[in-house]
Amino acid sequence: MKKLESLQNWVQDQHLDVVYISDPNSVAYFTNFISDAHERILGLFVFADAEPFMFAPELSIGSAKKAGWTGDIYGYLDHQKPFAMIADLIKQRTSHYSVWGLEKDSLPVERFELVREQFPNATFPANVSECVRQMKLFKTPGEINLMEEAGEQADLAFTLGFNAIQEGRTEQDVVAEIQYGLMKQGIMEMSFDTIVQAGANAANPHGGPEKDKIQPNQMVLFDLGTNNKGYMSDASRTVAFGQLSDKQREIYDVCLEAQLTAQDAVKPGITAAQLDKVARDIITKAGYGEYFIHRLGHGIGTSTHEFPSIMEGNNMELQPGMCFSIEPGIYIPNFAGVRIEDCVHVTENGCKAFTHTSKALNHIPVH
Amino acid sequence: MKKLESLQNWVQDQHLDVVYISDPNSVAYFTNFISDAHERILGLFVFADAEPFMFAPELSIGSAKKAGWTGDIYGYLDHQKPFAMIADLIKQRTSHYSVWGLEKDSLPVERFELVREQFPNATFPANVSECVRQMKLFKTPGEINLMEEAGEQADLAFTLGFNAIQEGRTEQDVVAEIQYGLMKQGIMEMSFDTIVQAGANAANPHGGPEKDKIQPNQMVLFDLGTNNKGYMSDASRTVAFGQLSDKQREIYDVCLEAQLTAQDAVKPGITAAQLDKVARDIITKAGYGEYFIHRLGHGIGTSTHEFPSIMEGNNMELQPGMCFSIEPGIYIPNFAGVRIEDCVHVTENGCKAFTHTSKALNHIPVH
Repeated sequence: MKKLESLQNWVQDQHLDVVYISDPNSVAYFTNFISDAHERILGLFVFADAEPFMFAPELSIGSAKKAGWTGDIYGYLDHQKPFAMIADLIKQRTSHYSVWGLEKDSLPVERFELVREQFPNATFPANVSECVRQMKLFKTPGEINLMEEAGEQADLAFTLGFNAIQEGRTEQDVVAEIQYGLMKQGIMEMSFDTIVQAGANAANPHGGPEKDKIQPNQMVLFDLGTNNKGYMSDASRTVAFGQLSDKQREIYDVCLEAQLTAQDAVKPGITAAQLDKVARDIITKAGYGEYFIHRLGHGIGTSTHEFPSIMEGNNMELQPGMCFSIEPGIYIPNFAGVRIEDCVHVTENGCKAFTHTSKALNHIPVH
Repeated sequence: MKKLESLQNWVQDQHLDVVYISDPNSVAYFTNFISDAHERILGLFVFADAEPFMFAPELSIGSAKKAGWTGDIYGYLDHQKPFAMIADLIKQRTSHYSVWGLEKDSLPVERFELVREQFPNATFPANVSECVRQMKLFKTPGEINLMEEAGEQADLAFTLGFNAIQEGRTEQDVVAEIQYGLMKQGIMEMSFDTIVQAGANAANPHGGPEKDKIQPNQMVLFDLGTNNKGYMSDASRTVAFGQLSDKQREIYDVCLEAQLTAQDAVKPGITAAQLDKVARDIITKAGYGEYFIHRLGHGIGTSTHEFPSIMEGNNMELQPGMCFSIEPGIYIPNFAGVRIEDCVHVTENGCKAFTHTSKALNHIPVH
C-alpha cells in the first residue's frame, strides 16, 4: 500500500481535505481491487486527516476484501442514493471536507455535480489525475514483473497465431485459434480485441478481423495483448504468408529499421518527441512518411493507452521505469499495411522489451 | 438518420446553440459509426442553425465514412490540439455558440474544462444525456431486430457451453469452448466477459471463471451475451451437472418461479418497481429474500446496462419498445448460486424475450 501512502502525502502537500478516486482503474492501482463497476459507483476516499475508505456496490464487497483491501469499506444497494451516503460517511469521519481533489480525466460532469450538491460550500481546485498519471509513469519492479508476464503471454499468442495461418482460413478463424489457445492456458482476458489483418485490410489500422479468406503472397498483421492481473501487454508483428513482392518487402524492411533504430535509441534523457522523430525520419527518408499516420507509441501499464505519449510536441524526458510502445507503421491504402511493435521499459542505460518474438521477417509457407 | 433529426429538434426546443455528443456509444447511436476512440477525441457537434459535423482521430475517418456518415468530418493528428480545432470549426460554421448541451453522464470534467476554456462566455445548462437516455429507452423495430439476432447468438453460446461441461474440465475451459465456437461462426465480440461459475463459486455474482475443475452434483451458472453490430444480448441460465440435493433444487425452483412470474407480469403500465417486487416477493416468501442482493434487471440496447433500471424506487411505467433484463438470483455463500435471466422488449400486451433457451432445469449427465 505504498502507493496509497504516496497519494496521502500528495493530499497533504496540496493542502486538500478530500480526494475522490473514482476511476475503477485507479481504485485498482491503489488497492489491488480490480473491478469494472459499470454504471454503479466505486470510489476510494482519501483524507488529509483521517483513514481512507472504499465505497462500493454491496455486490462487490466480498471481492474487494478478497483482493486484500483491509481498510473500511461501505456498500450500497441499487435503490439507495450513493452520493448522499458518501456525504454522511465523510462527515462522520472528519470535519474537514471543504477542499477537494477529483480525477478530472474520468469523472463525468454529472457525478461531479452530484458531489457538489452534497458539498455546496466545497471547492474542487485539484485534478488528482495529474498526480495519478505522474505516479503511474514510473513502474515499480513488481509492476514490471507483471508486465513481463503479460509480454510472455503475448509471445505465446503470436506463436498460436502464426501456427494458425493456413490457406482457406479467415482472419477471424486465426483470432479464434489465438483466443482458444490462450484460454486453454487460463489466460482469459485480452487488453483489447485481437487484430489480425491480411493484405490490404491491414492498411486500415483501426479495422477488425474480417471473414474473407487469407490469400497467399500477402503480409498478415497481428496486434494483440493480454491483461495479466491488471497489467497489460501490447505488441504487433507482421509476417509474410507465401512470397512477397519487392514493394511489400521494402515497406517491411523500412518499418523494421525504424522500429529497431528507435528501440535502440531509448535511453534516459531522450525526449518522447526525439524518439518519435528517430523512427519518423527513417520512414520519411524512404519516401513513406505520409503513410505513417499515427504517433510512434503510447504509455502502457494498468491501461493499454496511458502516458507517456511518444509523439511530436511531447518534450518529456524518458526516464527509468517508464513503459511505452514503439510501433511505427506504414499503411498504403488498397495495398498493404505493416506495423511492428514492442513495449519496453526504460532502464539505466537503454530499455528492455516485454515481448521477444523475433522481428526478422517471418515467412509462413503456403502448403 | 431519423435519430439525428430528433436530436436536432431537441436542440431547438431547448433553445440551445450547440450540442456536443462525446460518448462513442452515443456517436454510434446517431451515426452508425461504432468506434472506441480510447483516450482520443471523437465527437459529434449538432447545432440549432447549422449542419452537424463529426470530429475524429485522422485514423478513423475512413471507417466513419464506410459506416455511412455522409456529413462533414474533420480529423486531427495526435500532436494537434483537438479542442482548439473544434472551436475554430464551430466558429466558422455558426455565430451562435453560447448555450451548450453536454453529455454529462460521460463527459469527463477535464474535457469539460477544455471546452469551457475555448468558449469562456458560454453556458452549459443542458444535460444531453437525459435526452439520449429518453430516446434510447424506446427501441425501433430495426433495433429490436438486431437485438433478436444478438439473442440468437446468446442461445448458440448456451448450447456450446452446456455441451462443453464434462468432468475434468474447468470453468475457464468451458468459457474457452464457448468463445471458440462463437468465433468460428464469425461472432467476435461479447457484450461482457463470459461468466461460468460452478457450485459455491456462483454465490459470488461478480466473480469470474476459475481454474478449478467442475465437480459433479453441482449447479453451473452461465451469464453471457454478444455484441451484434453495436446491440447487446445478455442472458443467464443455471444447469444441473449430475444430481442435485433438495436444497439446490429448491433454490432453483424458487428462482425460476420468480423469473417466469415476473416475465409474465410485464405489460405496458406496470412500473419498474412493481415488476421488481413481483419477483422479490416470491423469493422473500420462500425465505431467500436476503440472498437476492441485486435489482431485478437493467435496460439493454447499445450498452449492456442502460435504462430502465428495474428496481425498488423506480416508478417509471414500462412501455412498448423498452428493453431490459429480468434476472432474479439467489446467492448462498459457500453453497451455491442461481440466476435465470432473459432480456425482453415490451409489446402492446406483454413482452417478448430475445433469448429462447429453455429455463426448465437442464440436467447434464456425468459420464
